[in-house]
Amino acid sequence: MSDTRSLRVALLGAGTVGGHVARLLLEHHDELAARAGVSIDLVGIAVRDVNAKRAVDLPAELFTTDAETLIQGADIVVELIGGIEPAKSYILAAIGSGADVVTGNKALLAEHGAEIFAAAARVGAEVYYEAAVAAAIPIIRPLRDSLAGDHVERILAIVNGSTNYILDRMDRFGDSMEDAQRVALELGYLEADPTLDVEGYDAAQKAAILAGLAFHTSVPAAGVHREGISSITLEDVESAREAGYVIKLLAIAERVVDDAGLEGVSARVHPALVRRDHPLASVHGGNNAVFVEAEAAGPLMFYGAGAGGVQTASAVLGDVVSIARRHLAGGVGVGESVAADLPVHPIGAAETRYRISLEVDDRPGVLAELAGILASRGVSVETLQQSASTPADGEADRATATLVIGTHTARDAALAAAVDALSASDAVESVRSVLRIEGA
Amino acid sequence: MSDTRSLRVALLGAGTVGGHVARLLLEHHDELAARAGVSIDLVGIAVRDVNAKRAVDLPAELFTTDAETLIQGADIVVELIGGIEPAKSYILAAIGSGADVVTGNKALLAEHGAEIFAAAARVGAEVYYEAAVAAAIPIIRPLRDSLAGDHVERILAIVNGSTNYILDRMDRFGDSMEDAQRVALELGYLEADPTLDVEGYDAAQKAAILAGLAFHTSVPAAGVHREGISSITLEDVESAREAGYVIKLLAIAERVVDDAGLEGVSARVHPALVRRDHPLASVHGGNNAVFVEAEAAGPLMFYGAGAGGVQTASAVLGDVVSIARRHLAGGVGVGESVAADLPVHPIGAAETRYRISLEVDDRPGVLAELAGILASRGVSVETLQQSASTPADGEADRATATLVIGTHTARDAALAAAVDALSASDAVESVRSVLRIEGA
Repeated sequence: MSDTRSLRVALLGAGTVGGHVARLLLEHHDELAARAGVSIDLVGIAVRDVNAKRAVDLPAELFTTDAETLIQGADIVVELIGGIEPAKSYILAAIGSGADVVTGNKALLAEHGAEIFAAAARVGAEVYYEAAVAAAIPIIRPLRDSLAGDHVERILAIVNGSTNYILDRMDRFGDSMEDAQRVALELGYLEADPTLDVEGYDAAQKAAILAGLAFHTSVPAAGVHREGISSITLEDVESAREAGYVIKLLAIAERVVDDAGLEGVSARVHPALVRRDHPLASVHGGNNAVFVEAEAAGPLMFYGAGAGGVQTASAVLGDVVSIARRHLAGGVGVGESVAADLPVHPIGAAETRYRISLEVDDRPGVLAELAGILASRGVSVETLQQSASTPADGEADRATATLVIGTHTARDAALAAAVDALSASDAVESVRSVLRIEGA
Repeated sequence: MSDTRSLRVALLGAGTVGGHVARLLLEHHDELAARAGVSIDLVGIAVRDVNAKRAVDLPAELFTTDAETLIQGADIVVELIGGIEPAKSYILAAIGSGADVVTGNKALLAEHGAEIFAAAARVGAEVYYEAAVAAAIPIIRPLRDSLAGDHVERILAIVNGSTNYILDRMDRFGDSMEDAQRVALELGYLEADPTLDVEGYDAAQKAAILAGLAFHTSVPAAGVHREGISSITLEDVESAREAGYVIKLLAIAERVVDDAGLEGVSARVHPALVRRDHPLASVHGGNNAVFVEAEAAGPLMFYGAGAGGVQTASAVLGDVVSIARRHLAGGVGVGESVAADLPVHPIGAAETRYRISLEVDDRPGVLAELAGILASRGVSVETLQQSASTPADGEADRATATLVIGTHTARDAALAAAVDALSASDAVESVRSVLRIEGA
């Protein structure tokens, strides 16, 4: 560590977030120094190409391609490159040289968080990562510190702005999935390759981080069950609306006791029906929100912009100032608590409710037959709604009906088995949609 | 400090919050120790009467009336007595003996926070107070740490659950103010003496704390402009609804540049019209929410229960565990940042919009006359709505109309002067209501 009245910050990466971090560190230098009690000095920015065009205008002399040397002289290393390598090596090098680390790298933390936190704990360094989940919304610190004495029961979170934008357009403007995706792409809510967002990979990484924090456990991204939104149709959205629900892509982390009585964590990402009067239902556009249910605190919600360079830079700067204050105070980092070390249960152990939409034969005895199939799998029916179907082309002579079944809470494994059995039944023409209901 | 593997916690007060803090410290002892990395041991509870009946059953041997001795042997003192004395003396004694302090005492912090924080800073002790504002909702730590690198522009907060419950009943169930207060009293949302809540004193203390934190400035409670909700009528609520607003009692803290060009802080509590599509509009019942607008982060909202013994205990425990981790890490407290040291401007310097409802003579020339009065005070009219009035008893021969004026943004001083001038005009029979519009 250098003189305690001046801290040297090395920035790795100068993309949309990094550019704003650099700009704010320079523009607000004196104000930040006054708040932190120590001068926070940006000493360099490591990039692949010093001549690349950048959205934010920054002094040319700060740029370097030599990340290793920059890291060696720093008190605080801010990693905003993203991806696994070279980000991981740089962070480990920073920790090894005695620096604290700020990162917004959700992919890296979800995959190698345990290794990085362990390396930091060995030398008393801190790794802060408020920017990794829900951009500027303070959620890491509230979970790690504010709720440190409470017992988190469940987190339901909208952590992917792109998919929330798409689903919100379908719900509010009646767009088809295809149209909503096209608009999202045009407006920059979606990347040219939408897979990471649309198929839930991004949300799954954040779910892993939230689950780990909330339950003091190491949850690898591979332990997160993942379903994206690409199968959601406008018909699903409209049918949900008629029943008083809105469809959201949720990242869920909750305590689950499995059939063997073993307490564990369920971490999953999937589209879900959320009641219209739930606070998450009013999260529109590209916004994010993290809804937390804790034993003592009760329900809490944290809401704000879920993306954006300058918004995410706010979270990074908060971490930088917090680390600067810690340097001033002395002492070492205490690292992440994984004291509970709970097992991560598969999706089958989760307890949820299903809303199943079926196309069935419209003849006597069908309802009893299907109810029997559900009952034999231990699934209890809560609501049942039958309506005449519009026959498909060439099947006008075939009498079918649409049957929508809402179930009571059951193990996801039992529900899935029941849907398989329904699907195999002669009375069922097709399974139109199966959606989980959450937050009720 | 005792052995770093065990921290002695002294609890002062065993009311609704204190009882739950004690219970949770005992029930979750091993879990908290695992998370914090150090045993957190409740060594005693100081109360006035050891034989008093308590809501939570606790071991009799923990109780003592000798707070001074208990404090002397503690590493962490949790003050939940409330009020100014003896709470203040106890906290200063705790700091003097080298202990860290956790408190939920908003009245004390709003009035003597600067003195207490200075005493703590001198010896490197920490004073944590997450429970002082909005119960379990993490807001102190997000403002102090997460947004430490950002520039907060404005806070609009619902921080008094009792008045939110009352106003929400009026809005949703059409209760009169009197009826809503009666129900709030019956259901325990309101104290037998409702003055602290209804007249905005409680919210003003919280506004002082939020303003101080957000703007790195010492804001005394006396610097907070305060208006309660007792003058709000069902007619106001209904008229607001028709215009697309809901009335909320807001605690507001914002940056203001006064007429002399001096940057300062405006801290105020008053009922305000909030647009129905603003996130604060959907905060119902006794819930609290803090809406923060920051330069980089954009709008954020923190939502949850605003009161309750066990909910508030969650915030206290989060502070206790955070302090325990700090003890383990070593280092000293860094205290509150008051680096900006901005002046606190009077309400007149604030910039707001008014919605003014007048009973006026229904004759030619009145509108022009009233518009002239506003213009001469520099107040510009945005909306104007006139409707026939129902004449009061005995005045059926008098032709009057109801005129509702919505203004553009102006200094509060100019708006207040304009209302005075309208009130003095011969054309104005009565000023029916004047409400500020916020968050638009």
